[in-house]
Amino acid sequence: MATQRILDFFATRRPEGPCLVVDLDVVRDNYLGFARAMPDTRIFYAVKANPAPEILSLLADLGSSFDTASVPEIEMALTAGATPDRISYGNTIKKERDIARAYALGVDLFAVDSIAEVEKIARAAPGVRVFCRILTDGKGAEWPLSRKFGCSVVMAEEVLMRAHVLGLKAYGVSFHVGSQQTRFKSWDEALKQAAQIFRSLGERGIALSMVNLGGGFPARYLKPVPGVRNYAQAIRTSLGKHFGNAIPETIIEPGRGMVGDAGAIKAEVVLVAKKDESDRHRWVYLDIGKFGGLAETLEEAIRYPILTDRDGDEKAPCVIAGPTCDSADVLYEKTAYDLPVTLTVGDEVLIDKAGAYTTTYASVAFNGFAPLKSYVI
Amino acid sequence: MATQRILDFFATRRPEGPCLVVDLDVVRDNYLGFARAMPDTRIFYAVKANPAPEILSLLADLGSSFDTASVPEIEMALTAGATPDRISYGNTIKKERDIARAYALGVDLFAVDSIAEVEKIARAAPGVRVFCRILTDGKGAEWPLSRKFGCSVVMAEEVLMRAHVLGLKAYGVSFHVGSQQTRFKSWDEALKQAAQIFRSLGERGIALSMVNLGGGFPARYLKPVPGVRNYAQAIRTSLGKHFGNAIPETIIEPGRGMVGDAGAIKAEVVLVAKKDESDRHRWVYLDIGKFGGLAETLEEAIRYPILTDRDGDEKAPCVIAGPTCDSADVLYEKTAYDLPVTLTVGDEVLIDKAGAYTTTYASVAFNGFAPLKSYVI
Repeated sequence: MATQRILDFFATRRPEGPCLVVDLDVVRDNYLGFARAMPDTRIFYAVKANPAPEILSLLADLGSSFDTASVPEIEMALTAGATPDRISYGNTIKKERDIARAYALGVDLFAVDSIAEVEKIARAAPGVRVFCRILTDGKGAEWPLSRKFGCSVVMAEEVLMRAHVLGLKAYGVSFHVGSQQTRFKSWDEALKQAAQIFRSLGERGIALSMVNLGGGFPARYLKPVPGVRNYAQAIRTSLGKHFGNAIPETIIEPGRGMVGDAGAIKAEVVLVAKKDESDRHRWVYLDIGKFGGLAETLEEAIRYPILTDRDGDEKAPCVIAGPTCDSADVLYEKTAYDLPVTLTVGDEVLIDKAGAYTTTYASVAFNGFAPLKSYVI
Repeated sequence: MATQRILDFFATRRPEGPCLVVDLDVVRDNYLGFARAMPDTRIFYAVKANPAPEILSLLADLGSSFDTASVPEIEMALTAGATPDRISYGNTIKKERDIARAYALGVDLFAVDSIAEVEKIARAAPGVRVFCRILTDGKGAEWPLSRKFGCSVVMAEEVLMRAHVLGLKAYGVSFHVGSQQTRFKSWDEALKQAAQIFRSLGERGIALSMVNLGGGFPARYLKPVPGVRNYAQAIRTSLGKHFGNAIPETIIEPGRGMVGDAGAIKAEVVLVAKKDESDRHRWVYLDIGKFGGLAETLEEAIRYPILTDRDGDEKAPCVIAGPTCDSADVLYEKTAYDLPVTLTVGDEVLIDKAGAYTTTYASVAFNGFAPLKSYVI
């Protein structure tokens, strides 16, 4: 449920058009929750989740480090007050000139998952630390990962050895268990693979230091999810099991888990209609859709809580769609969404837990609609 | 194949980063092609396909009318020199205050597909012309439409009668056969339904005037498609068959068919890698992806021709992905794409026929990447 501060903002400011409001108090609570639950783990906030300057500044002040996907994100983290040693260039797909720019800005920690990327880094950022991302199967995640990132364990060993040979510091292993991961076993399986790489490289005289546990810590949307303390406990157990008493340095990269539940979007019902009198479901059209910031409804992956002023009334399933002339701009159809039968044109709705992956995903001007506005309070 | 003017632009200007270049000569040829093939049909360019001011100005000068999805698109068409009588507010999902703004700007033609929308228009834009969109099944289209737009024939009759009762001008019927439609029969089926509505309303003393044939005229991507003259002939035949000698006024709304083949995107190969030595396919990562303008690769719907300087070399299938840290940012995977085996990091590629639905779809700043740049020459 959105915080009172967010509700008050909407009630008093009455901003025109769809907009996101993020409550910094929640972001602070989330950061401190991670820090308390995993005191020995460095937190690298995934800037891509929401790069609002106020969020980055708050987290920089709290001592967070930053996982970045591009040179502009590195620059945003620096502007927010992070020193370069607190920035990871976590994208495994980088242009050589962007690697050089990051190096010039002082960044010293880079993600890789291929020999070709190692070679670029060796040329453009000599001597820096690299960690290699391994593939996971994403089982149990709500937004499972494709095979786009990471490589096999065997190849990861080759990649890190190549880094070593080229004068880079083979620093560690990373993985990502998939977004909204609620299955502890996924971390255990990935940590087992990471430990195998540590041993294998160790036998060849290369001492790895770090395991990047990635993100995937779930935000609560409609279903309850285990809290961060449960994850911390499960991860601690797995680290002990697979690394014995040589526990590596660890880092995490929460994005959604840091800001997802800190924001809510106010939207408006533009139309409620049926296609034929005999239709079972109404169509409810909002002034925000897939191309206005709710890209994570693709394949109905993320199911946001939607709150209305009529939630006490009887509810019935409906299809929810966005305002553009694009027929793919439908949010929930395969699994219809229960909304009050009294919902009507002009009603405001609150799309809750929408602090992550909304503002920056919005299209720049599709159908002439402006990108999602954002306020941080 | 991209025009020599586009190739020359890339060769001499060497713009940094991914960008689209649109050749106005091709847009002009396409407009004149439609005008010649369908001399009795008014052309309403679908502004959402590409709202670049130079394109809108050219089309306004050539005499085109404009199909718009929002008040900003109406304003862009007016700025380009279109008079309000040449503008249709073609989105069936409109806020009442946007209807009022359009009315204040002089727009007199509105799309509807529900009673609720008719009631909004009657309040905010009294006396204007409305046309009702009917559902089609989208069979034969490469980017088939959902049920998001349109209503049943029975409901369309009610919607238009309601418009009449509320003092609006019940003006006609529209449909959209689905994008990249290559099946003439789809137009025939829709025209049969439209004629039924004309007869039914006529029996109740309401004389409809216009059939909006929508868009869907295909641009040629990889496979050859029938030319616009073939469509014109098929539509003419169907109009005669269903409307006899009371042929209605007709309009078309080409978007992709007007600008799709007029533009090409230059992109760069950022990484070529395998996940394991045993992998069958390489992954080729470009500096543009789903969130940088190629949203129409969703579900691999649109398959762009991709040209390289190494196209004489042996080719092999690969997976093509974008540059963001989003694992959904994969362009072609289910059906792998043949590219030269010699393709390597730093190579430029040309994504052809990319003039439609690219620039405005691009996300505003996802992963910190800037939206797709665009040049019109």
